[in-house]
Amino acid sequence: MTGVTKNGQAIKIGIVTVSDRASAGIYTDLGGPAIIDALKEMLAVSWKACPKLIPDDAALIQKTLADLIDREHCCLVVTTGGTGPAPRDVTPEATEAVCHKMLPGFGELMRSISLKKVPTAILSRQTAGIRGTALIINLPGKPSAIRDCLMAVMPAVPYCIDLAGGPRLETDPAVIQAFRPASA
Amino acid sequence: MTGVTKNGQAIKIGIVTVSDRASAGIYTDLGGPAIIDALKEMLAVSWKACPKLIPDDAALIQKTLADLIDREHCCLVVTTGGTGPAPRDVTPEATEAVCHKMLPGFGELMRSISLKKVPTAILSRQTAGIRGTALIINLPGKPSAIRDCLMAVMPAVPYCIDLAGGPRLETDPAVIQAFRPASA
Amino acid sequence: MTGVTKNGQAIKIGIVTVSDRASAGIYTDLGGPAIIDALKEMLAVSWKACPKLIPDDAALIQKTLADLIDREHCCLVVTTGGTGPAPRDVTPEATEAVCHKMLPGFGELMRSISLKKVPTAILSRQTAGIRGTALIINLPGKPSAIRDCLMAVMPAVPYCIDLAGGPRLETDPAVIQAFRPASA
Repeated sequence: MTGVTKNGQAIKIGIVTVSDRASAGIYTDLGGPAIIDALKEMLAVSWKACPKLIPDDAALIQKTLADLIDREHCCLVVTTGGTGPAPRDVTPEATEAVCHKMLPGFGELMRSISLKKVPTAILSRQTAGIRGTALIINLPGKPSAIRDCLMAVMPAVPYCIDLAGGPRLETDPAVIQAFRPASA
Repeated sequence: MTGVTKNGQAIKIGIVTVSDRASAGIYTDLGGPAIIDALKEMLAVSWKACPKLIPDDAALIQKTLADLIDREHCCLVVTTGGTGPAPRDVTPEATEAVCHKMLPGFGELMRSISLKKVPTAILSRQTAGIRGTALIINLPGKPSAIRDCLMAVMPAVPYCIDLAGGPRLETDPAVIQAFRPASA
Repeated sequence: MTGVTKNGQAIKIGIVTVSDRASAGIYTDLGGPAIIDALKEMLAVSWKACPKLIPDDAALIQKTLADLIDREHCCLVVTTGGTGPAPRDVTPEATEAVCHKMLPGFGELMRSISLKKVPTAILSRQTAGIRGTALIINLPGKPSAIRDCLMAVMPAVPYCIDLAGGPRLETDPAVIQAFRPASA
């Protein structure tokens, strides 16, 4: 089982819960742990979670995402929360502000998957993008929707990180049929 | 049957027909009345229509949308026309210019619904977004497509306006299965 | 069989292969010829291909697209390559930079079609837009995906170019069921 970057360091994944109320201790963060559980189930490499719990503040979300990639060298950062139409929902804008390249197909697929369960899926503004050699993906706030969305996009994640120049991720083929072209 | 805002005022919905020819009297506006008919069928609250008929002029569309929300206090503004690839089609750009937050899932769903009927659905650039506490939705120009698109997105509209901070809309459950989470 | 513009000139279509390696002669350009073959199969008007083979350089892509439309008077420009998440993939950004109007429905449909074959379809950032009276469409780099994507969007292309003010294209009805409303 692999699990190191090109520099021989452990693979790190940032898990960012964006929620005014969870970060203030008003309720327990369920989204972050749900992402960690889903990634444990899906990935077949050793990896280290870098969890963060922050309020819905655009500048702080941007700094957190940038630090996780630029300083902590995460190859993947997954967010939960802040993607809806409420005034405090600014996660997609903060994501776009720190990305060098946007990947609209992630949001399209995640909305179409969620739409099979609930018509309000169209209210989600979740997106994904590349910063440097890392991928950032916005997930919904709801734990059950987190797993559905990650299941939908994860088959494309390892090759995406390859192309961006990050470390080689492997998924458990019993859970996720990740795709790499024969040449990769 | 409810039908008042938090300030006790009647719920208002802006209906904006964007068309050089209809606004010049060259032909009759069919889009605006088609929206009013569809909303009458779908909504189970009392509401007042604020209809506007204007040419495909970006600055005028922006002013009309902003005034309907900021001065007339509409909680929902629905446009028809001006979403195609022709040089005078500027409704989506004008909408984006006055919105504080875009909701790409509305356009994606409406195009996918229209695509089942006509392959040129991909030419529509219709979108939706939030200005203040109100929702703006672009619909196609064609009356039959107006009803199809509104039927598709309306289940998410009441909860969207809740989240944006607007008044509580109710739909007729025999026509529209609007969704609100149990907590809302 | 028609095949002239309003000025009586031949219909021209730009075919732009964007690839560092193919343009350096490291491997043969397969994408450009695949586009030409697909268009020959689909179009029922006489037309002239304007093929270009260039590296993944944003400024050069922009200049090539703009020149094909503004100087060569192509009514349609189709690109292949440079739409992924790799650092050198900049074709969508270059396309957006020279377009006056974007058409998000093209990218949405092409990704959804490709997604039926390969989960990494969500990594494609391909889009389409209008410059002046011409349509620009980004296609994937892979020859088999090129034909699938063109088959999906081509039914909407002739009417799109009509609306943008370009010449009248006709497709072979045995291959492509192009749609124009009765009034067009």
